[in-house]
Amino acid sequence: MQNKKENFSEWYNEILETAEMSDKRYPVKGMNVWLPYGLKAMNMIDLLARELSEDHGIEEVRFPVLITRNQLAVEFEHLKGFEGELYWVTKGGYDQLDIDMALRPTSESAMYPMFSLWIRNHADLPKRIFQIVSVYRYETKHTRSFLRVREIHFYEAHTAHESYEDAERQIGDYMKIWEGLNRTLKLPHVINRRPDWDKFPGAVYTIAADAIMPGGRTLQVATMHHYGENFSKTYDIRYSDESGESHYVHQTTYGMSERLLGAVIGIHGDDMGLILPSGIAPVQVVIVPIPSQSADTASYGAEIMRTLRMEGIRCTVDTRDGYTPGWKYNYWEMKGVPVRIEVGEKEVSSQSVTLAVRTIKGRRKTSLKDLTKSVREALAEHDEKLEYNSGRVIGESVRHAEKVEDMKGQFSYFAYWCGNRECSDRIESETEKNCLGVTLSHPSKGKCVVCGRDGDRAMFSRTY
Amino acid sequence: MQNKKENFSEWYNEILETAEMSDKRYPVKGMNVWLPYGLKAMNMIDLLARELSEDHGIEEVRFPVLITRNQLAVEFEHLKGFEGELYWVTKGGYDQLDIDMALRPTSESAMYPMFSLWIRNHADLPKRIFQIVSVYRYETKHTRSFLRVREIHFYEAHTAHESYEDAERQIGDYMKIWEGLNRTLKLPHVINRRPDWDKFPGAVYTIAADAIMPGGRTLQVATMHHYGENFSKTYDIRYSDESGESHYVHQTTYGMSERLLGAVIGIHGDDMGLILPSGIAPVQVVIVPIPSQSADTASYGAEIMRTLRMEGIRCTVDTRDGYTPGWKYNYWEMKGVPVRIEVGEKEVSSQSVTLAVRTIKGRRKTSLKDLTKSVREALAEHDEKLEYNSGRVIGESVRHAEKVEDMKGQFSYFAYWCGNRECSDRIESETEKNCLGVTLSHPSKGKCVVCGRDGDRAMFSRTY
Repeated sequence: MQNKKENFSEWYNEILETAEMSDKRYPVKGMNVWLPYGLKAMNMIDLLARELSEDHGIEEVRFPVLITRNQLAVEFEHLKGFEGELYWVTKGGYDQLDIDMALRPTSESAMYPMFSLWIRNHADLPKRIFQIVSVYRYETKHTRSFLRVREIHFYEAHTAHESYEDAERQIGDYMKIWEGLNRTLKLPHVINRRPDWDKFPGAVYTIAADAIMPGGRTLQVATMHHYGENFSKTYDIRYSDESGESHYVHQTTYGMSERLLGAVIGIHGDDMGLILPSGIAPVQVVIVPIPSQSADTASYGAEIMRTLRMEGIRCTVDTRDGYTPGWKYNYWEMKGVPVRIEVGEKEVSSQSVTLAVRTIKGRRKTSLKDLTKSVREALAEHDEKLEYNSGRVIGESVRHAEKVEDMKGQFSYFAYWCGNRECSDRIESETEKNCLGVTLSHPSKGKCVVCGRDGDRAMFSRTY
Repeated sequence: MQNKKENFSEWYNEILETAEMSDKRYPVKGMNVWLPYGLKAMNMIDLLARELSEDHGIEEVRFPVLITRNQLAVEFEHLKGFEGELYWVTKGGYDQLDIDMALRPTSESAMYPMFSLWIRNHADLPKRIFQIVSVYRYETKHTRSFLRVREIHFYEAHTAHESYEDAERQIGDYMKIWEGLNRTLKLPHVINRRPDWDKFPGAVYTIAADAIMPGGRTLQVATMHHYGENFSKTYDIRYSDESGESHYVHQTTYGMSERLLGAVIGIHGDDMGLILPSGIAPVQVVIVPIPSQSADTASYGAEIMRTLRMEGIRCTVDTRDGYTPGWKYNYWEMKGVPVRIEVGEKEVSSQSVTLAVRTIKGRRKTSLKDLTKSVREALAEHDEKLEYNSGRVIGESVRHAEKVEDMKGQFSYFAYWCGNRECSDRIESETEKNCLGVTLSHPSKGKCVVCGRDGDRAMFSRTY
């Protein structure tokens, strides 16, 4: 296995292949095959996103993938943001289509003509929907599994509200959804409000969660946009208030993608391989019976598996022939399984098991009657360790810079910034770090590192 | 509501709209929006298909939607079956693509180049994968929600085996998956082996489940194909046996789609609206508190909901203002909810509930302490009723014909058939019924209704 610290990029590619997450040999570049293990982990993330969305009153829908040029053309500045990245369907069967249709790059232009039909009066508001689908971008940059691909597994929520303030409260709900999701994923991250010139095309403002990747680069893993009336005026989405007066709705969106999985892999993994948080691990516990002449360790292992499965713990037993226990330990460590249970002669005779936690050194013994409790504790300790590591990453990889010259290293940087583009442009050109905007999760005020005027803490980093 | 018996087609369209399953006003014809209620029911079907697949060792994957012309071109007769129905992506950004790419109409040509990389020797076999994705057909026929659309929600399993016989055993597994799924869906259906000239392009043979729709037409809802070596020779998918000798793999596929939901809706519904089997009902139990001056029926209803949810029963309470209890009963009957619980003053004071089952006349009382048990019994009775109705449909809608002239009515027909095309062509032209092939689920031998030679029981019907 590659050394993660010295060569993150090659380590990342190797682990995706070795752990069988994704296969990038598909004949269309940047469009990869989701292999069972990677897809299972992504399905777990989707399940969390579904539950959190529904808890917040956002309902699941599914819109068509094709968007006609007419639907798109009305999109003012929004379309310009995607124009160069659209895939176009121009033929159906043997015929040229009457109108070209794009593969969805995101679904504003697919959904909002329907919003205009669905929303009539204030009783129809708030309208809150989400979908989990593939979106398509004709990427010209170098592609990389889960981080930059041409077919992107995507979560998008879209809402409509009576007022700007209602929509702003929705952004607060999105933040709760993000926090709920990250209670499982444990990603070290910073919440930033993007500079105006870098917000989503068509948005009033954009807030992003930027995960801190190894090597000090950041990866945008979630974005929340307040659209105000920008889209509703374009798509004519209006409601009548109680007095019958007509108003445009105020809208928001929230987007996340398979980058979440890329971030989990990149951030938590080590030189042994993957490390998965227990909430998304396809296998939470692996049982390795150690073959024995005098005790039936395989049936003892199977019994343990049944017990744990009854408790809703995702569990498997590795009874493969022709592999040593040591080889199996390495294999499942590489797969990032949080807890391993070893059962040999001694364990059978003493009705106990030996536990190893992926993120904690050493082994522990526990009696069979405390099995479930001990396994739950071990999973919790594993997740706490990831949480602890996550906090440490912020401390180690994000430096506070007092002046522009301090921002040239392999880190992300917090620095006070007045909010003006000239100042951030100078930082960007001198340090090759992008301005991610004012930091909302670690707010603080100070003098701009460039011009000395009053400013806010902002974040600068190389980005994926 | 339309009369289902007199005007099935309008009844079907109306119920999809009223129950908010699907919205067909999306600007691309034949591509519809999945609304929350319809999508929830479909998600339940998908969940069953996932569990059954994994129980049978078939692992979930996800392949890209785009297939290059090169991948497709090698597809011999298979491609010819789809050529006129492909959507083509020809542009990316501002550029013409180097090679046109089709939206997947089905995934043989996407998957099998990867099979050729994945499969090296006999230890790699059997290889069994499935995916649940959208597939695309540029339909020229009249479209109808869930039954004939241009973006189809699709389940497809693909397997590779060492021998023809191993692959044939896989078809047996598919049949078990189908039966498992239909234990929940309760669709009246017949299993037929398609005539050679109507098998899937590229298959050695095709077996289909044909559901019996109202009005006597049939709807193909599941297909299983034995591919033999037809595709493996085209895509060069070979394995080495133990002696190192190279062989082509034998392949199979299994396909199902959103038609399953269309069949459930069309077959089980009545003039009150939808009727959903409990296993896929987004809401299994609705609680309607009847407003009262002297008792807090709303909090009593909420308590019942909590109890049922703790037991894993999907349950909601309808506390909407401004609607009468009667209006709410009709609303939830229209939505096809299997069990309704009414709680008024009397129920609160006697610590009981009144239950109504969607498919059974009358109401029943039960004490609060027997709540869960009574609800489970009511759900089971509801499903048994659907099972009973399903059996009745076969008896009533499929007639046995002794001669060709008997096959001209509004039914499906069993008739003995020698297997020759001239004979089935004559039946088709005289009766406007299609030959669905020899019936495997009700086998019997007799003299061909056309030529009098030895034959097998076969099925003839108008099809969707």
